[in-house]
Amino acid sequence: MSQNQSAPILQNDLLLRVARGETVHRAPVWMMRQAGRSLVEYKQVQVQAGGFRALIAQPALAAEVTIQPVEIVGVDAAIIFSDILVIPEAMGLPYQMLPQKGPSFEETIRSSADMARLHPVQSEGNLDHTYEALRITKRLLNGRVPLIGFAGAPWTIFCYMTEGSGSKTFSVAKSILYRNPVFAHDLLQRITDATIIYLRGQIAAGADLVQIFDSWAGALDRKTFEAFSLPYIAQICAAIQEVPKTVFAKGAFFSLDSLAALDCQVLGIDWQIDAEMATAAIKKQALQGNADPCLLYAAPEVIAQETTAMLNAFPAGRHIANLGHGINPDTPRESLFAFVETVKNHRYA
Amino acid sequence: MSQNQSAPILQNDLLLRVARGETVHRAPVWMMRQAGRSLVEYKQVQVQAGGFRALIAQPALAAEVTIQPVEIVGVDAAIIFSDILVIPEAMGLPYQMLPQKGPSFEETIRSSADMARLHPVQSEGNLDHTYEALRITKRLLNGRVPLIGFAGAPWTIFCYMTEGSGSKTFSVAKSILYRNPVFAHDLLQRITDATIIYLRGQIAAGADLVQIFDSWAGALDRKTFEAFSLPYIAQICAAIQEVPKTVFAKGAFFSLDSLAALDCQVLGIDWQIDAEMATAAIKKQALQGNADPCLLYAAPEVIAQETTAMLNAFPAGRHIANLGHGINPDTPRESLFAFVETVKNHRYA
Repeated sequence: MSQNQSAPILQNDLLLRVARGETVHRAPVWMMRQAGRSLVEYKQVQVQAGGFRALIAQPALAAEVTIQPVEIVGVDAAIIFSDILVIPEAMGLPYQMLPQKGPSFEETIRSSADMARLHPVQSEGNLDHTYEALRITKRLLNGRVPLIGFAGAPWTIFCYMTEGSGSKTFSVAKSILYRNPVFAHDLLQRITDATIIYLRGQIAAGADLVQIFDSWAGALDRKTFEAFSLPYIAQICAAIQEVPKTVFAKGAFFSLDSLAALDCQVLGIDWQIDAEMATAAIKKQALQGNADPCLLYAAPEVIAQETTAMLNAFPAGRHIANLGHGINPDTPRESLFAFVETVKNHRYA
Repeated sequence: MSQNQSAPILQNDLLLRVARGETVHRAPVWMMRQAGRSLVEYKQVQVQAGGFRALIAQPALAAEVTIQPVEIVGVDAAIIFSDILVIPEAMGLPYQMLPQKGPSFEETIRSSADMARLHPVQSEGNLDHTYEALRITKRLLNGRVPLIGFAGAPWTIFCYMTEGSGSKTFSVAKSILYRNPVFAHDLLQRITDATIIYLRGQIAAGADLVQIFDSWAGALDRKTFEAFSLPYIAQICAAIQEVPKTVFAKGAFFSLDSLAALDCQVLGIDWQIDAEMATAAIKKQALQGNADPCLLYAAPEVIAQETTAMLNAFPAGRHIANLGHGINPDTPRESLFAFVETVKNHRYA
């Protein structure tokens, strides 16, 4: 039985109302990477937990940092603190998070022999931790705001599993697409199957909406994105019908029309795509975004001015205010308030 | 007196004919980073010279690696082996090229006090070396193909001077734009002035065409690109009238219409922009590009097929075949031949 059925009625359901196309008096606001990036309160809990990976494995602490931006900054949604890479881990590829360098896998998947070592996802890795963190968060939120679950898009996970880390050119991942498309599709399908199980688990544990992050969509072009990424995102969208879905394909300016055809309720718009371009291509979904995270280095009055311009540029009632990419770790604290307050004070006529 | 006046008549002037809008029987072809990246013959000369920086400082060897792709791969143009960072160096900021990590500056320019230490460019740094390399190359080419000179766009140079190295988010450079635009414009103007002097020197030394590389245009959005990058590129285009100009603003999909208004003869199209999008926005200039450098990991028959598709997608006679970004260092040698031969065998009707 879904946790949602016993959950208290949401006091602030702005996010879900916009996702469902219902009337709102202002745009809801949250910020990608609002949990687990820039708040000093987060950094304290992370040290207490013993690092980023250790924090994911401690559901009570993960729930605590998930709720911090709701209580401290006043955002209209919580997003569960976790990592897209728990999926490759659950499939059999452990990883480390290296300071300055980011994620690093000891082993990579580049051949059929490598792939044979992978196993289907049940609840290995940190998946159970994430479900438990969702349940605790849901209880502690007690209906204050919706709770967002998430997963990486299969292409993005494929990049990490083949490259073993982030990359500037993704030359390993992309050479597989060009040299061995059959292998690529096989691995992408396995990741997709695991991701659907994972998102269903998150929904059962209380997620009110799920977001699919295709962080490396921008390593592709239209043709390769629509061959190797979009079909797997579409499979996930088709499989998940219990809650609204947001798809954020960062850097996929070349496929806005194809993204607009997805069975999802919200499309994330990155900060390089202007509102005019997004609204011209996307008619059906709500639009989430898209302030430049670097805008948050500006003085509060500049943030207020640019955020207001953003609010005016997106269609009223179809807009979820957010950044167009994750918060930078060194973002000044007062900037978070300037951004969120500007949105909350901007009422639709 | 310009070296061009005494140069032999070009035997292969396809590149310049397309730049000037004259009739051609096929697309000219060259590849960004064709010199100084993937050829084993280059790597040998680089070792002999004592490294990348040392090679730039030895004009006879720089000329040798410039000519290698003409003689070995059969491209229709040579581009001088040098580095966009000779400009900050000539302004007073020395740098190192670190293995795996790329360029690294000891000092950065982040305040007016820092900026006061910069000096105007005459021929300090390695600029004289580059001019001499152009003269030697021109002599050795002896009219076989045109010789391309180049410089970084002011915004890209600004990134290196403020960040001190490459960056994932360009948060230092961009925070300056958002917090101190007056300072940013001052530094950008100084870089622009130096770049115009440098390009004029390259033309006097024999460059038949110059290309401006805005490698980090994609760190901006439309508004910031058109405020902090495009006006300085436009100044350079206005100042240089002796030879055709190519502008390559990588990642600036959001400003194709504004790029199309520049006073230049060729626009570089990166590999993420499809030919349809480029030709819809750009009517005046020739289009240069835009195969994905990762396509060169594919089998030769796939390279031939995709390259033919590219040739058919761009307008005949207005297209300079190229990659849509620099060659990756680990590109297989046979792929260079597959790409170049496909273009050379594709005749316009």
